[in-house]
Amino acid sequence: MVERFEVETRGQGLYPITDRVARIVDASGVAEGLCTVLIQHTSASLTIQENADPSARRDLAAWLDRLVPEGDPRFTHTAEGPDDMPSHIKAALTSTTLSIPVVRGALALGTWQGIYLWEHRRRPHRRRCVVHVGG
Amino acid sequence: MVERFEVETRGQGLYPITDRVARIVDASGVAEGLCTVLIQHTSASLTIQENADPSARRDLAAWLDRLVPEGDPRFTHTAEGPDDMPSHIKAALTSTTLSIPVVRGALALGTWQGIYLWEHRRRPHRRRCVVHVGG
Amino acid sequence: MVERFEVETRGQGLYPITDRVARIVDASGVAEGLCTVLIQHTSASLTIQENADPSARRDLAAWLDRLVPEGDPRFTHTAEGPDDMPSHIKAALTSTTLSIPVVRGALALGTWQGIYLWEHRRRPHRRRCVVHVGG
Repeated sequence: MVERFEVETRGQGLYPITDRVARIVDASGVAEGLCTVLIQHTSASLTIQENADPSARRDLAAWLDRLVPEGDPRFTHTAEGPDDMPSHIKAALTSTTLSIPVVRGALALGTWQGIYLWEHRRRPHRRRCVVHVGG
Repeated sequence: MVERFEVETRGQGLYPITDRVARIVDASGVAEGLCTVLIQHTSASLTIQENADPSARRDLAAWLDRLVPEGDPRFTHTAEGPDDMPSHIKAALTSTTLSIPVVRGALALGTWQGIYLWEHRRRPHRRRCVVHVGG
Repeated sequence: MVERFEVETRGQGLYPITDRVARIVDASGVAEGLCTVLIQHTSASLTIQENADPSARRDLAAWLDRLVPEGDPRFTHTAEGPDDMPSHIKAALTSTTLSIPVVRGALALGTWQGIYLWEHRRRPHRRRCVVHVGG
């Protein structure tokens, strides 16, 4: 089964999507199988990260911003703004697809794991994800 | 089919898990299909790396330690110790899930590829993995 | 269904493989399912990146070259040449496997997404990929 969903981002940051994916798994009726999420963009990405303390996600995003700063004079791909090329790099360093086993009809994530859509652009975007659930 | 296994880590480093995963594939009876491994933690991760010369894995881990040093004064997520936030970052930069085709009942890895569980915390941990094998 | 293909690389850079993968999906006859690509090497990798402006891929590769420079005196795994250890690191930071949903018989990639094989070694190599397509 394949479903789609969209996330309206409000600029840079990690947006929780575990519930969106979990509802699709639930609706699929698959008891044991595999759930795969793809984000259809190259300037936003996916990650599985700690779902408890938001300071971990803030520190993670701030660290990646320091690793890939805007305004690098060696960037040539600048037509879409100073945050565009860093966004492509951040997406390449994180994940575009994630696959999670399904057990007893639910995502087999660890207690502290959440799935996040990571917006790397400064401006709001409508981001599309595709979810496959197989038996 | 979904199976689980645990790895008792003894601190930072890459722990080989290819044999653990291969045994699950073998027991599944799946001749051709897909094997997916998920680690249920966000301060340890997975990677496929060279299985021959251990110096490659040592250099890899040492390089990542230099990229994400402990004690960064800008980290705010410090309650769980100085190695915790670097561990989350290292996990985000590597993999939480891996999917490997199964051919003739075995993982279709390259000759020099091994699957590793990468412990990023200094203290020993019991790490849980979930493996899905589908036809 | 599992198929294989090879890419003859001519040194470092991103080589488009979307068409190779798409043809395998087409030949599989799978209308809705999941396509997984594995590269059987640890000094080359996979990524999904912007398929339009080649300057984005050039900037991405140049940035990663600066992050992981050759000639780091702390590398000990140097027997295979100065570009070998950086290649393993670059592979660990990007992807060895990618899974993409299949919808109406085609890869459900975004408009601007392409699949690339990323050669990290300086010399030409014959790189092998394994593709699984499941229903």
